[in-house]
Amino acid sequence: MLLSEKTAFHARNPHFAEDVRASFAKQKIMGVLGAEIVDIRPGYLEIRLPFREELTQQHGFFHGGVIATLADSAGGYSAMTLATPGVTVLGVEFKINLLSPADGEMLHACAEVIRAGKRLVISQIKVYSVKAGQAKLCALMQMTTMMVDLQEQT
Amino acid sequence: MLLSEKTAFHARNPHFAEDVRASFAKQKIMGVLGAEIVDIRPGYLEIRLPFREELTQQHGFFHGGVIATLADSAGGYSAMTLATPGVTVLGVEFKINLLSPADGEMLHACAEVIRAGKRLVISQIKVYSVKAGQAKLCALMQMTTMMVDLQEQT
Amino acid sequence: MLLSEKTAFHARNPHFAEDVRASFAKQKIMGVLGAEIVDIRPGYLEIRLPFREELTQQHGFFHGGVIATLADSAGGYSAMTLATPGVTVLGVEFKINLLSPADGEMLHACAEVIRAGKRLVISQIKVYSVKAGQAKLCALMQMTTMMVDLQEQT
Amino acid sequence: MLLSEKTAFHARNPHFAEDVRASFAKQKIMGVLGAEIVDIRPGYLEIRLPFREELTQQHGFFHGGVIATLADSAGGYSAMTLATPGVTVLGVEFKINLLSPADGEMLHACAEVIRAGKRLVISQIKVYSVKAGQAKLCALMQMTTMMVDLQEQT
Repeated sequence: MLLSEKTAFHARNPHFAEDVRASFAKQKIMGVLGAEIVDIRPGYLEIRLPFREELTQQHGFFHGGVIATLADSAGGYSAMTLATPGVTVLGVEFKINLLSPADGEMLHACAEVIRAGKRLVISQIKVYSVKAGQAKLCALMQMTTMMVDLQEQT
Repeated sequence: MLLSEKTAFHARNPHFAEDVRASFAKQKIMGVLGAEIVDIRPGYLEIRLPFREELTQQHGFFHGGVIATLADSAGGYSAMTLATPGVTVLGVEFKINLLSPADGEMLHACAEVIRAGKRLVISQIKVYSVKAGQAKLCALMQMTTMMVDLQEQT
Repeated sequence: MLLSEKTAFHARNPHFAEDVRASFAKQKIMGVLGAEIVDIRPGYLEIRLPFREELTQQHGFFHGGVIATLADSAGGYSAMTLATPGVTVLGVEFKINLLSPADGEMLHACAEVIRAGKRLVISQIKVYSVKAGQAKLCALMQMTTMMVDLQEQT
Repeated sequence: MLLSEKTAFHARNPHFAEDVRASFAKQKIMGVLGAEIVDIRPGYLEIRLPFREELTQQHGFFHGGVIATLADSAGGYSAMTLATPGVTVLGVEFKINLLSPADGEMLHACAEVIRAGKRLVISQIKVYSVKAGQAKLCALMQMTTMMVDLQEQT
């Protein structure tokens, strides 16, 4: 097997954590769901979401769309940790595999930047459901976001 | 260009519409969001969702995760319209491109089955945002669901 | 159902067809496979590939990777039909569903631009296998390409 | 961050390596490209492909379709390492991000099973281009394959 491709990312915005938290706070849907950021580092972001019956599909587990929403937010903000000041990120696309029923008391979406280009950032997001202290991988997402100057249009 | 691949689908469950509606009613998250089914036919399902501030991202538009949740539900239920009685559908995976900001007073997710195999169903979902009566395509999803006997495990 | 989202696309490069054909001719792999462009219009590109045993997987059908290669090329060039002169396109990502075994004497990859932004172009590609004159949809792809100035780096 | 989700996979077919190699040898396109298996373990498969001009796109790098073909094969066979005897695997779908130009003398596609269900297997494939002994991640793929009894139809 080949050597690891891991890269240490460096933040280009000294206030990236505050800026990410401020933007996250404006995502009303995160508050409605009850999601909160639990870890934020250059190239990494983790969100968690406690179980509530309001978030379920027909079998009583977390809805796939809720899982995707959480992963989408974590992925977008993992990209934003690497943005320069005055630049925002737009979600371009994502693909998610739902690996197992998400039946736990907590979801964690852990987003890691895989590559940060000048324009596009690719992140991978792992979503775990935690049940009785045991974490199980329940979804895997691959996501593309675009860096956009706040003046500029796409 | 080649001839169209359109197929007329036939429901294998005479009560498919009632069964889909009953399952949809159990998806608590759909009620929380405020989504409702507006069209249901063999191989086709459409859901709409009125705008509310609670559903937004940081710029005040519908959140990408909300768009994905709506499309995911529409896609899964488009597959279920073709299931035999006693068979349910599980979302396997989906991929979504966010095409333009979803800034309207209503979202419509229109899901169409592209291919229905014995086990797997592939659907395509178009999401439109409607603003002042004008519909704009804001997202495109491709989704795989699996038919599962209620006794059987995946 | 809602009104169609079809848009007529206009080429920004009067020589788009020649430029696309010249670039295609440089993709050595297309020559090795035996692929050729059969239709090219603003926002649309179609490639076909005759069957040869060299292109098969273990069951004697067209290999999934060959199908993806053809669709990828068609998708990228559908985007290039809309580029301004001096701008090239880079494949960012794609997702493909293999819908049925590709057992025919010819493959057709038909790529249609769904949305052309300033930077990103989203295309949908349908791949048909043709057997005894009958076309069958064998794959569906959703693809993102990026417009890049030849001076600029991503 | 949460504990790792890594699982040790156990082969259900004592001859999995021979069976995978025999099937790979029947994929004519692998021979045409010049690809060969370099590592095979339960839940893991690695293929490499030396550079040749015939495999290039218009800028002289490995064509995105070739990268996808290699990753697709590696992913499908990573699933097959876990199949029971008499069961084959069918590629259902995949999504690939092209991360950087693949300009090297060798490609390596390293496929790892993320989850093996009764029917569906999800793999992740990392593709590296190796230049002057340095490996660079050039593509990331997420793939679904289906286990199919050789008697049964999908």
